[in-house]
Amino acid sequence: MTRFRLGIEYDGGPFVGWQRQENGPSIQQCLEEAVAATVQEETHVYGAGRTDAGVHAIGQVAHVDILKEIAPARLMAALNFHLKPNPIAVTDCAVAADDFHARFSATGRAYLYRIANRRAPPVLERGHVWWVPAELDAAAMHEAAQRLVGRHDFSTFRAALCQAQSPVKSLDRLDVNRVGEEIQVIAEARSFLHHQVRNMVGTLRLAGEGKWSADDVTAALAARDRAAGGPTAPPDGLYLTRVVY
Amino acid sequence: MTRFRLGIEYDGGPFVGWQRQENGPSIQQCLEEAVAATVQEETHVYGAGRTDAGVHAIGQVAHVDILKEIAPARLMAALNFHLKPNPIAVTDCAVAADDFHARFSATGRAYLYRIANRRAPPVLERGHVWWVPAELDAAAMHEAAQRLVGRHDFSTFRAALCQAQSPVKSLDRLDVNRVGEEIQVIAEARSFLHHQVRNMVGTLRLAGEGKWSADDVTAALAARDRAAGGPTAPPDGLYLTRVVY
Repeated sequence: MTRFRLGIEYDGGPFVGWQRQENGPSIQQCLEEAVAATVQEETHVYGAGRTDAGVHAIGQVAHVDILKEIAPARLMAALNFHLKPNPIAVTDCAVAADDFHARFSATGRAYLYRIANRRAPPVLERGHVWWVPAELDAAAMHEAAQRLVGRHDFSTFRAALCQAQSPVKSLDRLDVNRVGEEIQVIAEARSFLHHQVRNMVGTLRLAGEGKWSADDVTAALAARDRAAGGPTAPPDGLYLTRVVY
Repeated sequence: MTRFRLGIEYDGGPFVGWQRQENGPSIQQCLEEAVAATVQEETHVYGAGRTDAGVHAIGQVAHVDILKEIAPARLMAALNFHLKPNPIAVTDCAVAADDFHARFSATGRAYLYRIANRRAPPVLERGHVWWVPAELDAAAMHEAAQRLVGRHDFSTFRAALCQAQSPVKSLDRLDVNRVGEEIQVIAEARSFLHHQVRNMVGTLRLAGEGKWSADDVTAALAARDRAAGGPTAPPDGLYLTRVVY
């Protein structure tokens, strides 16, 4: 048996999310079917981040155990062949230690959230950004974001369905930058609560529109109540960019 | 009558090209229908660059004459409303001088060609890049590209269908840069022959793979024969980025 570590990229648009579900195709299922088509083995593909429906990944990491002997480069090429026409690609493939676990060995995760901030609707980036036509103040968003960095009870930014045992998380980085007509939010932490990034971005939008001050964001965090936070930003703009081990 | 200058962005994938044709939807037709739906006038929308089937634009410029009085901001919003769900957006709209002509007043055009240069197929950028899995030497491509800059007979890089009166053009800039896993080719000229950028990029790929030297590119140019040039690169990676007046 060999454990392989896979780097994975996908357009989350057509999927119910990373995890296998009854109600539609998942990225996990597509990968497991590609492994089965390649080596005729039934496997379980473990992902570092269980991204939601519509959320994309540039740097998802997964592992899978395969009995048959196969070189990493050949496995990667075969998986990419069988993954077609799904918008999922294996970008890296390497032999991993037997105790490497894509999810439990991970010590950090990074997400990027992209907001198209212009009057005209995005067309080349449709489905890959959140369109906010009203002008956003990136500096005000960044200032408000700093109120969320650190170790806090993030109940205000936690989805009702969240399965985490504790709402307390350490947010290491939450940077907001303007790049031309795009606002980019970069979030880094050991792990995140369900919908945490999207709920934080939905709240930062209010700061960017001048509706909320940084103090309002601090007050929302302190409330430890989802009802005190801003709305949930759509999945379209969210990318899992990196997993740290 | 007011002449409006429009900035236009589109995903060329679903279209037969800029220009109206019998065999499918064109960007021009969609814009003319959006104008008709907005002001109930039959108009002609003139574009600066008649991009081919599948070619994208970030900075296309067009003009249109409208009888009804309408503010530019309202016109832009209405056009974008009526353009849905086509992947076309009006990104700018301003009143222009009566003698402004999007095509004939233009003094320069800039194109970007994007090559995804990696083993894994592109998925988030599918249809928006040319996938070349074999590693390309961007420096060698750039060196070869400099042999094409200047005033030359570009018959080697001209499509058989090209309607230009002369094959002689001045190429002002042809830069090749690597940006991570992407090779970006930037081409600037007063105007281009039909398929010129795609034919030059297809030839530069040969230089990037080490199959052709810069001298081979010089010899191909001197041959003034399409058969002496490299293959035509696909439209997917090509973007009209800017029109200069």
